[in-house]
Amino acid sequence: MSYAKQMLDTHPREFGLDADLLGRCIEACLDCAQVCVACADACLGESDVAHLVKCIRLDTDCADVCETTARVITRQTEYEAEITRTLVEACRASCRACAEECEQHATHGMEHCRICAEACRRCEQACADVLAAVR
Amino acid sequence: MSYAKQMLDTHPREFGLDADLLGRCIEACLDCAQVCVACADACLGESDVAHLVKCIRLDTDCADVCETTARVITRQTEYEAEITRTLVEACRASCRACAEECEQHATHGMEHCRICAEACRRCEQACADVLAAVR
Amino acid sequence: MSYAKQMLDTHPREFGLDADLLGRCIEACLDCAQVCVACADACLGESDVAHLVKCIRLDTDCADVCETTARVITRQTEYEAEITRTLVEACRASCRACAEECEQHATHGMEHCRICAEACRRCEQACADVLAAVR
Amino acid sequence: MSYAKQMLDTHPREFGLDADLLGRCIEACLDCAQVCVACADACLGESDVAHLVKCIRLDTDCADVCETTARVITRQTEYEAEITRTLVEACRASCRACAEECEQHATHGMEHCRICAEACRRCEQACADVLAAVR
Repeated sequence: MSYAKQMLDTHPREFGLDADLLGRCIEACLDCAQVCVACADACLGESDVAHLVKCIRLDTDCADVCETTARVITRQTEYEAEITRTLVEACRASCRACAEECEQHATHGMEHCRICAEACRRCEQACADVLAAVR
Repeated sequence: MSYAKQMLDTHPREFGLDADLLGRCIEACLDCAQVCVACADACLGESDVAHLVKCIRLDTDCADVCETTARVITRQTEYEAEITRTLVEACRASCRACAEECEQHATHGMEHCRICAEACRRCEQACADVLAAVR
Repeated sequence: MSYAKQMLDTHPREFGLDADLLGRCIEACLDCAQVCVACADACLGESDVAHLVKCIRLDTDCADVCETTARVITRQTEYEAEITRTLVEACRASCRACAEECEQHATHGMEHCRICAEACRRCEQACADVLAAVR
Repeated sequence: MSYAKQMLDTHPREFGLDADLLGRCIEACLDCAQVCVACADACLGESDVAHLVKCIRLDTDCADVCETTARVITRQTEYEAEITRTLVEACRASCRACAEECEQHATHGMEHCRICAEACRRCEQACADVLAAVR
């Protein structure tokens, strides 16, 4: 069982959202944040960095937004639906934009972009699942 | 002139949003993030911490969201309107929720909550101004 | 294979530190950061929050330091040994302080503190392993 | 008076370090973090981005480390000298490395690098002042 799920299971309060749904979204956000930091760094290390400027920018935004989203949805004491809803919406938008960009570079053989696009699409879906439950 | 404004003025690319508007929102986000970290810590140091649990939680979320928003709107290379719009919306929601909670404690003499509410309301307004320009 | 390791394996540049060692430390930092955010929130949700003030403070510091350490050691383009060395030292110190505090609450039946202490000790060790290689 | 100083003045507990010293270091860290995020983005927007790879990398690390340092030294409830000392040491190292790199680009007319070097040197000094007081 993931650490995220273990921690949700030992939380002293009841919470509005399903723990499995939350646990999956937290994990997806953390994976996506790490992969985006790594993809931005790998792009920066490529010889044709000038073609990867948009990718680096979107990776960096996506990493920041995913990390903050993971933190906010991890917290279940005094849950506020409006903060969750708007932030997970922003996370979904960041993941989608980054995935679209990385997918283009993946078709030209950039392996780090292929893995990054995969992590972004998984996080985009996990955000969509949480949004469906929050609404 | 603030560092945020100086940096916007030396950026090599043109950008879609007005630099004064952006500069004010970046500054407001950074102030709010710092004040929220400090308010959560001050609440934690109070003898009646049990009454401040919701305040600590909202301060912590608001700090994370404001910090990430400051980073994302600072970046102007390959600007994406959708990420900006959804994230600034989340920032406005976090600031409003935190301000409402802090204002209640401010009326009971909590000075750190009074200052925090002020910083949150200023950031909420700066976000509203950016949203009006993005739409 | 973890995402962290996959990303290290697709990086375009050679790097000074062993990829397995780095991958384990990145994973340990990310786990520890997530668990510390969750433990602080769980402590805040407990009825005896006043006894958990020090724990919440150390959890919060440890989360911030682990998250930043994971980001910095993920980046391998233009590696700087001095930044790595000093930051991983700070990460080890944060993990040790948080583990010591959480272990005390774990012996009084706080399950989230028991899991948190475990994640902190694993991260402390992973940091020590990286430091042995950097020096 | 800065928000950081106002918040230190309303903190309910006494703290070991001088509030003016702390306030200056918090402000310097926040300024440096913001300027480093902006400098990395401005470098990414330059036509000769390939020459700025090391600068972008050091800016990004320095932003992360400064932001975390500002958070940790803002917190004064249950202060731990060892975390402060090691983290401020890492912050000083990050600021110095970033300043050295930016100063080189500043001499070739990069205005964002000139401002960034200035903010890094100020933060490096503020960290040195805190370290002198912690030891």
